Amino acid sequence: MRLTKKDLLGIQDLSVDEINLILDTAESFIEVSTREIKKVPTLRGKTIINLFMEPSTRTRTSFEIAGKRLGADTVNISATTSSVVKGETLIDMARNLEAMNPDVIVIRHNASGAPHMLAKLVKQSIINAGDGAHEHPTQALLDMMTIKARKGRIAGLRVAIIGDIAHSRVARSNIYGLTRMGAQVTVAGPATMLPRQIEQMGVTVHQHLEEAIKDVDIIMMLRIQTEREQQNIFPSLREYSRCFCLNRKNIRLAKDDALVMHPGPINRGVEIAPDIADGPASVILEQVTNGVAVRMALLYLLTGGKS
Amino acid sequence: MRLTKKDLLGIQDLSVDEINLILDTAESFIEVSTREIKKVPTLRGKTIINLFMEPSTRTRTSFEIAGKRLGADTVNISATTSSVVKGETLIDMARNLEAMNPDVIVIRHNASGAPHMLAKLVKQSIINAGDGAHEHPTQALLDMMTIKARKGRIAGLRVAIIGDIAHSRVARSNIYGLTRMGAQVTVAGPATMLPRQIEQMGVTVHQHLEEAIKDVDIIMMLRIQTEREQQNIFPSLREYSRCFCLNRKNIRLAKDDALVMHPGPINRGVEIAPDIADGPASVILEQVTNGVAVRMALLYLLTGGKS
Amino acid sequence: MRLTKKDLLGIQDLSVDEINLILDTAESFIEVSTREIKKVPTLRGKTIINLFMEPSTRTRTSFEIAGKRLGADTVNISATTSSVVKGETLIDMARNLEAMNPDVIVIRHNASGAPHMLAKLVKQSIINAGDGAHEHPTQALLDMMTIKARKGRIAGLRVAIIGDIAHSRVARSNIYGLTRMGAQVTVAGPATMLPRQIEQMGVTVHQHLEEAIKDVDIIMMLRIQTEREQQNIFPSLREYSRCFCLNRKNIRLAKDDALVMHPGPINRGVEIAPDIADGPASVILEQVTNGVAVRMALLYLLTGGKS
Repeated sequence: MRLTKKDLLGIQDLSVDEINLILDTAESFIEVSTREIKKVPTLRGKTIINLFMEPSTRTRTSFEIAGKRLGADTVNISATTSSVVKGETLIDMARNLEAMNPDVIVIRHNASGAPHMLAKLVKQSIINAGDGAHEHPTQALLDMMTIKARKGRIAGLRVAIIGDIAHSRVARSNIYGLTRMGAQVTVAGPATMLPRQIEQMGVTVHQHLEEAIKDVDIIMMLRIQTEREQQNIFPSLREYSRCFCLNRKNIRLAKDDALVMHPGPINRGVEIAPDIADGPASVILEQVTNGVAVRMALLYLLTGGKS
Repeated sequence: MRLTKKDLLGIQDLSVDEINLILDTAESFIEVSTREIKKVPTLRGKTIINLFMEPSTRTRTSFEIAGKRLGADTVNISATTSSVVKGETLIDMARNLEAMNPDVIVIRHNASGAPHMLAKLVKQSIINAGDGAHEHPTQALLDMMTIKARKGRIAGLRVAIIGDIAHSRVARSNIYGLTRMGAQVTVAGPATMLPRQIEQMGVTVHQHLEEAIKDVDIIMMLRIQTEREQQNIFPSLREYSRCFCLNRKNIRLAKDDALVMHPGPINRGVEIAPDIADGPASVILEQVTNGVAVRMALLYLLTGGKS
Repeated sequence: MRLTKKDLLGIQDLSVDEINLILDTAESFIEVSTREIKKVPTLRGKTIINLFMEPSTRTRTSFEIAGKRLGADTVNISATTSSVVKGETLIDMARNLEAMNPDVIVIRHNASGAPHMLAKLVKQSIINAGDGAHEHPTQALLDMMTIKARKGRIAGLRVAIIGDIAHSRVARSNIYGLTRMGAQVTVAGPATMLPRQIEQMGVTVHQHLEEAIKDVDIIMMLRIQTEREQQNIFPSLREYSRCFCLNRKNIRLAKDDALVMHPGPINRGVEIAPDIADGPASVILEQVTNGVAVRMALLYLLTGGKS
C-alpha cells in the first residue's frame, strides 16, 4: 500500500487507513535505529530540506537523523541564519528551494497554515513540523504509535489531554487523530486555556485535572509555555501547578496501567512532577524513539515508498 | 579540458574559454538534479567547507546541495556560531581550516578582497561566494548559463542591468562576464547608485530605466538593499519604485522576447512588480536551478575534474 | 587493544596505556586526511551528535570532519538554535538525544562536570569537548600527539605552560596528561591567574615567563580571554603582554629546538608575537591537523574499534 498524498500537512486530512499505514511502516523502521549499522540506502540521492523558522532541537534533530538513517542528504535552514533577515517572503523562499529540486521540505513555522500555503506552491512533498497553534502531525503520529505499541490498540481507549489546549498544536493534532482512531478523548485545563466550542471536536471537557484523568488509559500532559505567564492567560506558574500538575497523588485516579505521555520539553514541577516524568508509567522517552521511526516512515512513504 | 586555476575569485580573472568551460560543465550537471537518485560519487571523500560570514539562505544552500549531490562531505560554518566571536582574525581562521585538509573553502564575507587574501594564504581552492560590494562570480556564471540556455548565445545580446550598480557585487561580476562574452551592457539607476567612471567598465549608462531597457534582450534587475533607505542613498522606497520598478508598462520597451532576471531575494513592488516576477518573461527560478549546476561544475573543476 | 572506557571525560581518568593507545591510533589515522579520497567506511551507519553549548569553530568543525571522514552521520546542535531557549534542562535534553539512538555525543558546555553528568545518565559514549574551566581532553591529546610526533617521546621532556592557568581547561588537561606521561611541567602567569596549591598537581610554578621557559623543550602558550580584562583579573592587556608575551627575545631562553604550541585561537601580540606564532618553532597548525586525527581515533575507539 502506498500513501497517495503529496504532503503531510495535518492529522485532520488523514483517514484511518492512512494513519494505520504510517504507523505500521514506522513500526518496521524501529529496528533500523537499533542495528550496529543504523543506515539503509532507501533514500540515497534524495534531498531533504529542514526549514525551521522557530527554534527546535528535538524535532529538527529527529527529522535530520531520520533522513540520514535512510541515506538521504539533509540540509538545515534555520530562521536565524537565513535570508529571512533580508525580508524575503516565505513564498519566494519556498519557490527558490523548489528550484533546487529537493524531494521533501520539512517546515516549522509560527504561522498557522504556512505549510499548506507551501504545499500548494511547490511540487515537492511538504511535511508540517508544527505550524503556529494549528497542527503538529508528526507528534500526534508518534504519540499514536507509542500508544499502539504499549496498548495494542487505540480504539476504545480513554485518553486525557491536560493543559493549554487552546494554544497547543500537539493537542489539536492528537484530538483529530485519537478520535478518528476510535479513542475517547477528554481534555482539561484552566478556563482561559480551553478553546470555545472545543466539544465540537468530539471531546469531553473538564475544568479539573482530577475529573479528566479518572479511569483513563492514557494521560497526555502538555507543555506550559512559561513565557505566557506575563500575558495573564493564567495567574501564575505556582497556581497552575497547584491545579494541573500531574503528581503521585492525582495519578492514582487513572487506571493502574495508565501511561503518562508528554511531547517535551518538560517543565519539571510545573505540569508534571519529576517522579512521574521519570516513573514507571512514563513513556516520554519511547515517544522520542518512536519519533525518529515515524519520521523515517513519512519520508519513505512521501517519496514513493510502499509498505 | 581542465580549469587550471586554483581558485574562483572573480569573473574579472576568467577568460572566454574558462567561462565557456564552466558553463558547458554546468550544463552537463543539470541532469543530475532531475534524476530519481540525485547523486553521483564524483567528489566522494572530498571535504567542502562553506564559510559564511554574512547571512545567506540561497547561496549557502545551493553550494551545500551541489556538494552533497557530487558525494562530497560538506561542513557549514557561519559567523554567528563561529569563533569569530572570540576575536580570531580571518587569516588565522583560514589557516586553521587549511590544517584540517579540506579540498575547497567557499567563502562569503562582507569585506571586498577577503577571498583573495585567503587564496594566497591557503593551498586549498577558494570559491568566492560574494565579497562585499566587489564580486559574486557564481551568480554571474549562473546568470550567463541561464541566458545561454534560453538565447543560445551571449555574444551580441543587449543586456540592461538596473538598480544599485554602485553597491552590487552581482552587477560588477555580470558586467565583467557579459562584456567579456561579447554582450552589450547598459546600466541604469539613481545618480547616487551609479559609480563614477562606470563607463570604463565598457557599459553605457542611463539615468532612466526606460532608456536603458529599450530593445534589450535581457533585463537584469538588482535587489534594493532596503536597509540603505536610512542612509540617504535614495529618497525613499516609494520614490525608487516609481522610477526603477520593472512593471508591465515599461517592460514593453524591451524586445518582445526579452528575459527578466533577478538574483533574489526579490522585493516585490520595489524593484520588480509581482506580475513581472511571476510572469512568462521571468527566468528567476531557472537562475536558481542553474545555480546548483554551476556550483557543481566549479566544485568538480576546481578539484581536478575535466570536461 | 581496545579502549574499555565508555566515555572520554578527562585526561585525569586515563592511564599511560590508554593515552598511548589513543595516540597510536590517531597516528594511524593521520594518513586518511591526506588521501585523494579522504574517507573510510569504518563508522558507516553510526550517528554522532555534536552538542555545543558554547560557541566554537575549530573544535566543532574538527569533530564534524573527523566523523564524516570515518563515514559516520554527524548532527550538530548549538545552544543558540536549540530548545535550550525553551528552558529545557541539560539532563532532559541528554535523555532525549539518547532516545534517538546516537552512538556518540560530543559535548561542550560552560559548566564544569556537565559531560560527566551526561555520561552517568545515558548509555552512549560521551566525549568532553571542553567543560567550563575543568578539562579539554581532546586538546591535551592532540598536544601530546604533536609533541610525540616531533620529539619522539614525552617522558623526560621539559614543558612550560604560560598564561591564565587558573581558568584554562587546556592547562589542566595538559598538566594531567604530560605529568602522567613523564614530562616535567612548569607553569607561569600573573599571580591572579595561578590557582592555589597548583604545585599539588605535580608542577613547578614561576611568576615570570623567563624563569619558566628556561631550557624547556616545549612552550605551550595559553589564550588570554580578553573579555576578562574587565574583571580585574589582570591590570591590562598591555601590561599582560609586556610580561607574558612570547617573543623573539625571551624565546632564546628555551632550548634551541624548543617547540611553540598554542591551542588557538591566538591573540597576536597579546600572548604570542606574530613572528613567533608563524615562525619555525611554531607547531600550532600541526596541532590542528593532529586534532582531526585524535578525534577520529576517539570516535573509532569509543565505538568499539581496536588498534
